[in-house]
Amino acid sequence: MGTTQLESVPEPKYWHLKTVLSEALDSEFSVGEILPNERDLAARFGVARATLRQALEQLELEGRLQRRRGVGTTVAPPRVGVAVGTEQQAWPGASGDVWQAVDCTSAAPPAAVAAALETGPEETVYTVRRSRVSHGQPVAAELLYVPASSVPDLSAIDAPSGPARARAVLRELQRLELEGRESAVELGSARADDARELDRLPGAPVLVVTTRFLAGGRTAALSVATYRADTCRLTFGDSGGVEIHQGPERQAS
Amino acid sequence: MGTTQLESVPEPKYWHLKTVLSEALDSEFSVGEILPNERDLAARFGVARATLRQALEQLELEGRLQRRRGVGTTVAPPRVGVAVGTEQQAWPGASGDVWQAVDCTSAAPPAAVAAALETGPEETVYTVRRSRVSHGQPVAAELLYVPASSVPDLSAIDAPSGPARARAVLRELQRLELEGRESAVELGSARADDARELDRLPGAPVLVVTTRFLAGGRTAALSVATYRADTCRLTFGDSGGVEIHQGPERQAS
Repeated sequence: MGTTQLESVPEPKYWHLKTVLSEALDSEFSVGEILPNERDLAARFGVARATLRQALEQLELEGRLQRRRGVGTTVAPPRVGVAVGTEQQAWPGASGDVWQAVDCTSAAPPAAVAAALETGPEETVYTVRRSRVSHGQPVAAELLYVPASSVPDLSAIDAPSGPARARAVLRELQRLELEGRESAVELGSARADDARELDRLPGAPVLVVTTRFLAGGRTAALSVATYRADTCRLTFGDSGGVEIHQGPERQAS
Repeated sequence: MGTTQLESVPEPKYWHLKTVLSEALDSEFSVGEILPNERDLAARFGVARATLRQALEQLELEGRLQRRRGVGTTVAPPRVGVAVGTEQQAWPGASGDVWQAVDCTSAAPPAAVAAALETGPEETVYTVRRSRVSHGQPVAAELLYVPASSVPDLSAIDAPSGPARARAVLRELQRLELEGRESAVELGSARADDARELDRLPGAPVLVVTTRFLAGGRTAALSVATYRADTCRLTFGDSGGVEIHQGPERQAS
């Protein structure tokens, strides 16, 4: 942001181009507008296409541009604040939960999930798939893993899969007393199934929020939620009101 | 993770390669080991170098690989959990703070920061630069913006810049009663100065945590902290104990 007095370091060519492009976005383009194609942009700024592509990738990381399937590269709206706050100490599916249950299966979970849940190879683990929509756009996809031992009274007669089954699992989970939640956020890349649900390409950068729900002194459920990194800013703490963006060129909205 | 029953979508070539490479990393390489060069890898897996590069980028996003200046591509250790928890309701610089003050300047802040702080164009804003080290590695760089009105009793006689000045600003800040904190995390790309401090290349993906410190009914200070996305998993909530990684192929450490 140019406020420090560290000695200057040589900046790669695409880095300078990124700054120039960023200023052009501010002054010449409006949100949602489609950028000219790479060939034309490279010609206009007098750079190689590889350099241009690197600069565009930077701007995508920073949330200034969106690459959309079959549309091209568009100027992104400001990121949407999405609360992943710890203040809401409730089970998934409790009243006020913003997630929608989509499906439920009972296939074997990934090894890392089984290890975290400390389930044996024989124990059934329900996988509830949920999705989260904000301002009419899908912003996150979740896999919530619930060992059968956390929902012992789940009726076997209900539908074996689908949203009704998902809701039944969540309902049973709420019988347990929630003792705490632990969350972590890290960078990941979208798996093919999540990518489709989030309207992104496989491998797109995503923010992965892992939450462990504690009950009875153990991990009673584990959520792995994948948020679109291009459109989302995850907010937590007292309230979700932080509205600062990274670049100096961008006004807080 | 292969646990859902959604219809299969066609996967790009690099996506399949990524899975194959990931398995090779597990079985043939150890943490810290340097990968063969791109030419050799492309030949071994029978793919174009562009495809290989895309797969390597995916693995870097997922924290499996690290690209290091002058070293090459190495197998990454598991990400380190770094607490950005809201439980610690204290001012920056309070006892137990893990950040080290590095410098303090009083240049004009970026427009977005001035807007969030609601400072006028004439008001001095101190910019405290701090760094955070974990397990001997730099993991984050912070710019903490403190308007002069938040530290009215700051002595003008002290050193005008440097770590001593930074500590004086933090000390004065702690006279205010902290009413709350609001944080947000989003994806960004490393600026040149942060990149150097974090031992990364400019433009590398980073997690940007913006925190607003509230006192006297307004934002008394604003922190913009840049975390290495390759090595860090940000933990928040009751405790920082979540140890699940994203991929199914990876055991919880």
